[in-house]
Amino acid sequence: MKIIIDAMGGDNAPSAPVEAAVKAVKEFGVDIVLVGDTDIVRKELSKYGYQGNEITIAHADDVISNHEEPAKAVRSKKTASVVVAANMLKNGEGDAMLSMGNTGALLASGLLIVGRIKGVLRPALATLLPSAKGPKMLIDAGANTNCKAENLVQFGIMGSIYMKNVLNIVNPTVGLMSNGEEEGKGDDLTKETFPLLKEAPVNFIGNIEGRDVMEGTADVITCDGFVGNVILKTVEGMGHVVSQKVKDIFMKGLLTKIGALFVMKGLDDFKQTMDYREYGGAPLLGTKKPVIKGHGSSDSKAVFSAIYQAKKFVETNVIDEIVNNIN
Amino acid sequence: MKIIIDAMGGDNAPSAPVEAAVKAVKEFGVDIVLVGDTDIVRKELSKYGYQGNEITIAHADDVISNHEEPAKAVRSKKTASVVVAANMLKNGEGDAMLSMGNTGALLASGLLIVGRIKGVLRPALATLLPSAKGPKMLIDAGANTNCKAENLVQFGIMGSIYMKNVLNIVNPTVGLMSNGEEEGKGDDLTKETFPLLKEAPVNFIGNIEGRDVMEGTADVITCDGFVGNVILKTVEGMGHVVSQKVKDIFMKGLLTKIGALFVMKGLDDFKQTMDYREYGGAPLLGTKKPVIKGHGSSDSKAVFSAIYQAKKFVETNVIDEIVNNIN
Repeated sequence: MKIIIDAMGGDNAPSAPVEAAVKAVKEFGVDIVLVGDTDIVRKELSKYGYQGNEITIAHADDVISNHEEPAKAVRSKKTASVVVAANMLKNGEGDAMLSMGNTGALLASGLLIVGRIKGVLRPALATLLPSAKGPKMLIDAGANTNCKAENLVQFGIMGSIYMKNVLNIVNPTVGLMSNGEEEGKGDDLTKETFPLLKEAPVNFIGNIEGRDVMEGTADVITCDGFVGNVILKTVEGMGHVVSQKVKDIFMKGLLTKIGALFVMKGLDDFKQTMDYREYGGAPLLGTKKPVIKGHGSSDSKAVFSAIYQAKKFVETNVIDEIVNNIN
Repeated sequence: MKIIIDAMGGDNAPSAPVEAAVKAVKEFGVDIVLVGDTDIVRKELSKYGYQGNEITIAHADDVISNHEEPAKAVRSKKTASVVVAANMLKNGEGDAMLSMGNTGALLASGLLIVGRIKGVLRPALATLLPSAKGPKMLIDAGANTNCKAENLVQFGIMGSIYMKNVLNIVNPTVGLMSNGEEEGKGDDLTKETFPLLKEAPVNFIGNIEGRDVMEGTADVITCDGFVGNVILKTVEGMGHVVSQKVKDIFMKGLLTKIGALFVMKGLDDFKQTMDYREYGGAPLLGTKKPVIKGHGSSDSKAVFSAIYQAKKFVETNVIDEIVNNIN
């Protein structure tokens, strides 16, 4: 199996992707193509004394930054790392691709270059969020701002297949994000979606609410990309503020620092379960081949998790199962 | 000034509203009408040995429970406490009303009985949320599931007036909840709203994102009631899960309990700043007279805060200023 990695995307590129690649070829037995400026990537690789032949470099002159208009940049910058990577994936020169760079550019590359699975109206970005009951999927987390009911149904189907195959969840539950639990609650979109999800080949548990996100009520939370983006960023922002506050409290004086020693282990364990880096990246579901978005701030540990996820995405045949279940 | 309180609504009724009323008449110098079953309320009042004449009781035979269909219940149950309270407010037998009961029933009472201010298209429920920079307003928090751009603009105007008058914030900032900061990001609704907010008589700072909720980037967050409800409940759910987890960590063993002693004060202070009970209730903005929704699980401390808020709502002339700024 060969994973194509955009070595130039993300806040910690190229060091994080390169370090993770070196570790991944050893631990997972995969081959990796690092796409980026050959000189820069080779120099970075040399830091780890890597001598093997599992990692190859595919040259890309250019990079799409976070500030560029995604679709336009993908169309015009033919030699940007994410575009080169997507073309390699399309042409069968790898089994999956991963980028920590500009989200919109990766989505556009997935849509315009890799292409949609026949029958999938809109591929969606699926993020794994921590919850009291383990990682749960939020789909769509931001690829499709305005959605139709059929889109939300397909998100539920694709998300279920991914959670079953990649996270080994038996008969994953699907909840429809709404503003009330009862059938009949919701906006125009969710009211139209509800009866369709009832008939869909998923384990639909009805409407869920915001509080169910962290409580982990459903394995798959389906919503449009606007609402998904708001949820994702609200949770991220709250996590950031709360952990900063707790840190301030512990660092306040000598006594609090002593107190912190006694509970640090437990808090660290908890922080780890809430850490996005443990869960790898966000798969784009609905493209013909596996495309994964790693968090922009991913360190090498996060990229390493995302490579593992890409491997499972490929070997559990998620794509084939989506093809067979969407029509 | 006279505050009308639905003494039968909420998880802790009638004890919490009655206890809070006894304390409030003493500390705030307001008069209070407790609306509910006279025998029950009188019995509850006697527990506090209350002998004054600032508190009166208005009899209401019936209650609207949380499981009833709100608009229907308000129309049919003429002697329900919330309906009696709203009629008293409408008829000038009090200056503001407060209920901890069925949210939908209070909204319906506000709309159907108290009535909209002329020019206000849709009154909105405005919740104060804790943030790293103090309490911020989320409007609409759930009264209007499907909104138009004009509604979101009015929410921004009404929210600004409330934050300025009741929370003493100079020139409050208004942010439009979206899925990206840049102008041009957003769904159809927010894209249409953006230029209108630019022209509106508010201190508009542009689009904000989910992470800005807890960071406190804007004093007033305007969004439709579907998105607002999802944000509110996501934050509540996350607060619940995180505080439960931290408690578990501290209670794990003897050493962690000792550690907890050193940091408990700081954590309690932090918990207090994140506590909805400190901020009183959620005002319904856009009705002809002040209507406040207290949290269903309010204890007497939370009701007491909400009474204080009702008092400020009245004495700072929020309603007059809304009348003068909406047309």
